[in-house]
Amino acid sequence: MEDQFRTEIGELGEFGLIEHLTKNNETMQASTILSVGDDGAVIDQFGRQSVISTDMLVEGVHFDLMYTPLKHLGYKAVAVNLSDICAMFATPTHITVSIGISNRFSVEAIEEFYEGVYAACAKYNVDLIGGDTSTSHKGFIISVTAIGEVAPGKFVTRGGAQVNDLICVSGDLGGAYLGLQLLEREKKIYLEHNGVQPDLQGQDYLVGRILKPEPRLDIVDWLQEKNIMPTSMIDISDGLSSELLHICKSSDVGCLLYEAKVPISEETKVMGMQFNVPTITCALSGGEDYELLFTIRQEDYEQVARNGNISVIGYITEKEHGAIMETPSGNKHKLVAQGWNAFG
Amino acid sequence: MEDQFRTEIGELGEFGLIEHLTKNNETMQASTILSVGDDGAVIDQFGRQSVISTDMLVEGVHFDLMYTPLKHLGYKAVAVNLSDICAMFATPTHITVSIGISNRFSVEAIEEFYEGVYAACAKYNVDLIGGDTSTSHKGFIISVTAIGEVAPGKFVTRGGAQVNDLICVSGDLGGAYLGLQLLEREKKIYLEHNGVQPDLQGQDYLVGRILKPEPRLDIVDWLQEKNIMPTSMIDISDGLSSELLHICKSSDVGCLLYEAKVPISEETKVMGMQFNVPTITCALSGGEDYELLFTIRQEDYEQVARNGNISVIGYITEKEHGAIMETPSGNKHKLVAQGWNAFG
Repeated sequence: MEDQFRTEIGELGEFGLIEHLTKNNETMQASTILSVGDDGAVIDQFGRQSVISTDMLVEGVHFDLMYTPLKHLGYKAVAVNLSDICAMFATPTHITVSIGISNRFSVEAIEEFYEGVYAACAKYNVDLIGGDTSTSHKGFIISVTAIGEVAPGKFVTRGGAQVNDLICVSGDLGGAYLGLQLLEREKKIYLEHNGVQPDLQGQDYLVGRILKPEPRLDIVDWLQEKNIMPTSMIDISDGLSSELLHICKSSDVGCLLYEAKVPISEETKVMGMQFNVPTITCALSGGEDYELLFTIRQEDYEQVARNGNISVIGYITEKEHGAIMETPSGNKHKLVAQGWNAFG
Repeated sequence: MEDQFRTEIGELGEFGLIEHLTKNNETMQASTILSVGDDGAVIDQFGRQSVISTDMLVEGVHFDLMYTPLKHLGYKAVAVNLSDICAMFATPTHITVSIGISNRFSVEAIEEFYEGVYAACAKYNVDLIGGDTSTSHKGFIISVTAIGEVAPGKFVTRGGAQVNDLICVSGDLGGAYLGLQLLEREKKIYLEHNGVQPDLQGQDYLVGRILKPEPRLDIVDWLQEKNIMPTSMIDISDGLSSELLHICKSSDVGCLLYEAKVPISEETKVMGMQFNVPTITCALSGGEDYELLFTIRQEDYEQVARNGNISVIGYITEKEHGAIMETPSGNKHKLVAQGWNAFG
């Protein structure tokens, strides 16, 4: 960015910055009674239950600004929180976004970030109703809280899976992990070869999986429309293994996962070969796919089988059987959570 | 802390840490349907409106761990968010707490912080229903979102003050600022004189004002009980000037503030003399007192005058008159916001 286009945050001040960033914020939800600009926001949810979820994203831990455009970052920060609301089988309605920024960021940079925030809000019909803007000594810190609504008692937890329920997953897995490897590889080349421009041609799908994940609200809407109530549900942020183990632990059950049934895209398969890494490992432990993992009763199988965006990948067993994956050749392995460890 | 009592966060892992920190978390609100441990929490607020507020606190910007015990920090992080809910004339019911921590913190340190969080929750009858635990490269980052409830349409914004309304403030002002100066002075002595222990004897009140502020839920409860509906309300985080100017701007009015009526405690007066700083400046620009500033209609004056915790400090004027403070000798000054500027 050219220097003449750089506005220092100090020129606006905290209140000026907030006003500047929210001046075009339009609310869409009828339940939004009062939005940004006071001590709190007010939402009205007569006869519905509210679902709340919150996430913190830290530069250098959760994202790398060398290859993450700020607009994508804003979009993703919202998307991953909406994904949590979807994973409760609820409909996201409102978010708050707080950021901590060092003075290395210009007003224009923060604007770009908010462009992404607003784009995600517009796409998913969610109102931005509040937030906080604060200084940080180092890097960019984002905290998003999402609020959703659900008919009383109709939310779905991780803890309701029953023996013989079918295990389902939306979309395909492992792509986000390989997209990240791709970006990391290009970053390394760029740094080692004095600014060689990255070659990401034809890699839109995988790069999009990591930089611009989408919450699967479409899956929640479809299941609700078909009157299919999942018995348990979680979103895939840390990898299929880790999430399936969460469901097993919370539901006090075991599971049998068929390796061959885990949905992997063609792009993921090709890139897996390039990186010489088994794509099933990417799906099990890569994480960040933000697909929905859920269980349904067997009687709902026929309807679900007709939805091309949902794969049935196994079934729930007695706890004593453990959490097992069966390979195409019939070997059985214990599932282990090797997902992203925040403190590794 | 002795090394043998130090548990590395890596020993527990992210999920282990969350489980560890929330295992004794009891919910008190009947509206808490589902709390910590799933993708989201669920709250039920049939026939009430929800108020949401969020704040981010960053080490070295908002707090200094050299003189802030972690338990106090946890308490304050919750208290300042509850204060925002009170400032909407609502009753806080739920919070989420997210933290970003570097590996310089042990599990015991985080436990101490959560002790404070739980203490504030218990005192104000608020349920902790979620959060996120994440790594940071440097320092301690806290993001709290508070949720409250209010009867439909009964929330109070900054924008409803009318000409001739009376300006009221709870408690006393300026103490938090002098408490902070005191702590900063002792820190400096400690650093310059190789570990001389700080002398804060007899300074409980002022030190408490900065380290352990209390949201004025008691004032909200009392006003609601007396059927007094303020016309506008805000909490004092940046100083009386800044907050009063917020009310004037949002309400499109002016104000006349009587310097002599601004409540200042004896402790504040004594310390103001020691530091050779006018206490009215501490009240106007010091901030962090977390008292409530609000306006009432004249007809409510008699009832409010009987409450020893509320001072009437001026009245609302036409916008054309500006925001003015009258000194005891009758001089008039324009009010200027010189409160804490996050980007100064």
